[in-house]
Amino acid sequence: MESLPPSLKQSNNVIYGVADPERGVYHIKLNRPEKNNALTKEMSEQIVACLHEAATDESVKALLMYGTNGQFCAGNDVEMILKSDPVPFEKISEQMFAIVNFPKPFFIYVEGCVVGNLACLIAFGDFVYYSEEAFSMTPFMSANLSIEGLSSIMYPKLVGRRKASELLLLDQRLYAKDALKYGFINGIITNNQRPKTEPYIKDIDKIPNLQKVLQTNLKTFMNAKRLMLEGLDPQFLKTHNLREQKTFFDAVSHPDFKKKMQIYIKNLQKKQPQPKL
Amino acid sequence: MESLPPSLKQSNNVIYGVADPERGVYHIKLNRPEKNNALTKEMSEQIVACLHEAATDESVKALLMYGTNGQFCAGNDVEMILKSDPVPFEKISEQMFAIVNFPKPFFIYVEGCVVGNLACLIAFGDFVYYSEEAFSMTPFMSANLSIEGLSSIMYPKLVGRRKASELLLLDQRLYAKDALKYGFINGIITNNQRPKTEPYIKDIDKIPNLQKVLQTNLKTFMNAKRLMLEGLDPQFLKTHNLREQKTFFDAVSHPDFKKKMQIYIKNLQKKQPQPKL
Amino acid sequence: MESLPPSLKQSNNVIYGVADPERGVYHIKLNRPEKNNALTKEMSEQIVACLHEAATDESVKALLMYGTNGQFCAGNDVEMILKSDPVPFEKISEQMFAIVNFPKPFFIYVEGCVVGNLACLIAFGDFVYYSEEAFSMTPFMSANLSIEGLSSIMYPKLVGRRKASELLLLDQRLYAKDALKYGFINGIITNNQRPKTEPYIKDIDKIPNLQKVLQTNLKTFMNAKRLMLEGLDPQFLKTHNLREQKTFFDAVSHPDFKKKMQIYIKNLQKKQPQPKL
Repeated sequence: MESLPPSLKQSNNVIYGVADPERGVYHIKLNRPEKNNALTKEMSEQIVACLHEAATDESVKALLMYGTNGQFCAGNDVEMILKSDPVPFEKISEQMFAIVNFPKPFFIYVEGCVVGNLACLIAFGDFVYYSEEAFSMTPFMSANLSIEGLSSIMYPKLVGRRKASELLLLDQRLYAKDALKYGFINGIITNNQRPKTEPYIKDIDKIPNLQKVLQTNLKTFMNAKRLMLEGLDPQFLKTHNLREQKTFFDAVSHPDFKKKMQIYIKNLQKKQPQPKL
Repeated sequence: MESLPPSLKQSNNVIYGVADPERGVYHIKLNRPEKNNALTKEMSEQIVACLHEAATDESVKALLMYGTNGQFCAGNDVEMILKSDPVPFEKISEQMFAIVNFPKPFFIYVEGCVVGNLACLIAFGDFVYYSEEAFSMTPFMSANLSIEGLSSIMYPKLVGRRKASELLLLDQRLYAKDALKYGFINGIITNNQRPKTEPYIKDIDKIPNLQKVLQTNLKTFMNAKRLMLEGLDPQFLKTHNLREQKTFFDAVSHPDFKKKMQIYIKNLQKKQPQPKL
Repeated sequence: MESLPPSLKQSNNVIYGVADPERGVYHIKLNRPEKNNALTKEMSEQIVACLHEAATDESVKALLMYGTNGQFCAGNDVEMILKSDPVPFEKISEQMFAIVNFPKPFFIYVEGCVVGNLACLIAFGDFVYYSEEAFSMTPFMSANLSIEGLSSIMYPKLVGRRKASELLLLDQRLYAKDALKYGFINGIITNNQRPKTEPYIKDIDKIPNLQKVLQTNLKTFMNAKRLMLEGLDPQFLKTHNLREQKTFFDAVSHPDFKKKMQIYIKNLQKKQPQPKL
């Protein structure tokens, strides 16, 4: 496979950095193809570190996040969840607000699945594009988990209260066409326009509007983005996130949780052969 | 007519109870066919009692609300309103929040009309389905009344601000097709899929997703539902409801109110022969 | 050209007043055809005075706002901005809240362009209609300005978060068809139904629903409108507006601002010959 340019680093199954300094696009590429980019703790922490770097490095003009191998992210690695203690509140909130508060233009390009945590948090991307077959899924009900990532606030705002109930209370998948129709994403990149993600997205012109945003005054954009976020009442988001976290923690701390999770995973594997998750 | 099973009770023009204990669906059926299920005070109080019973009885897994005779509810009985003193604040708020805060899965199936108060409160159902000819109507302007049931907050959230103005400020009816298009309901049950409502809905598989929700862990569902409600800022809902109530009370206490209401009723009767309301 | 009836006044490029006392519709017509009704300070102040008059004059039953010569408003006059000091906070807020808090039925009819400030504030009209070719535009990014007129709150509420990002962060125009599809306006007046705006709109029956609203009890309507506004949490709107104003003021006070604005204007003129702005 083609090798990475020296400006892109790789650690903890994440490829990251500014590929082309003239343009200043910071890439975060989830890179755990054998697990459809399911998140380990190390990956989540690496993403947070990348977000901080991209936010503070003055040469960075925009962020572009995507996955390898035709998938975005299969959610938190369920086997990891089974093996380890629940991640503490503060850790999860820190990760979440690194995305929520990311101050620069934030583009997300989803191929394949986006599941769980990141299916909630892409609500905070400024521009989200799907490939034709992409879909989101928040299987909180079937996994005996709880709503997370502020989706109990952001899903109704994005897709309306009725569709939000179907996504969050019925675990419905939201495929590209409906995601666009209901206002969950900005657009669908058709197969003939699809950028090559390996070893990283070189042709950033295939990400709609990214080129246009790079020509906008960064400070002007950041101010507008901040005002839109403040319009969401960040103090209320924070308080509400504590409620979500508490409920989530109670769910994963339940004595039956791991047993039920094992059943859930078995059912998943029966229903869908790997690597389609 | 076929008689009710012993597990279903009937009082104050409401049929209620768990028909099939194995499934645990609590039925609330409005049953005043001669008046298109228009609400008397006694019916409203009965509904509140049912909601409390369904919420606290541990065998109850979900709630299903509907009406008899091809209608859901023609609103508060206008003749009753004319004859009696205005219902006090606390009473109306108590009724309202019994619906808003109902903690378990809440399915609503509307045939025919849903008018006034309940046309507002179905916003708080988790899953709302209409038959093909069903419609909602909030004739607050023509009846010289005032917005109630938190519709001044929930209608814009459900159908968008523009459509909400048309419904609330122009008294427009919202028919099934548009109700679905604008996100007011979850779906339309076509005539060939329509469940028989007499003497009660036996074939609950005809209510979309009800069977699926019964298979979900109830605690998991209730947590998710609670978080979605808390995302609406219940404290603000409460404060706002007091504003709505105060305005409503002022409207019905106005010296001209009853006279105008009589004119409104006469016009209604001229326009539409009973029992179509 | 046909002359104005004596009941309509004209000053500071605004034509205003009640044309037909029996109906009680107050007209505000932006009337600076040579500049596509771009706002001078004097025009803005005149509009505020008109809003106060229409709000307090008991004979006024509804407000109708539109522009002359096939245009609504080209935004604040950029040449004026270049020549003068920034308008102080309090002034802009006063103008804004005269629209936000206007207590009576508020109809807006847009032909041609609605740009900037008023493209934000039409969110607070109760009923907004576009002619077939009408469009809105908030060129805050290209002009190195900042979000204003509470659009960072109201745009997401009207058109959804995804479309709002495209309008506010990419300066996209929103044409009539999409404006209707996304819920930004109530309807499109087709060319064969279009009212004649010169010298003022006489045939108010061509404004959808205006006649219907005039037949509604004004007090009842005003109560409902007030409740819908209070549902938006006016205290939060006020606080947020201060944030918008502060950011806007910082932008226009920047030492490079006027230079960049001159470049912006030149580019505009290159792209589009006057008077199409």
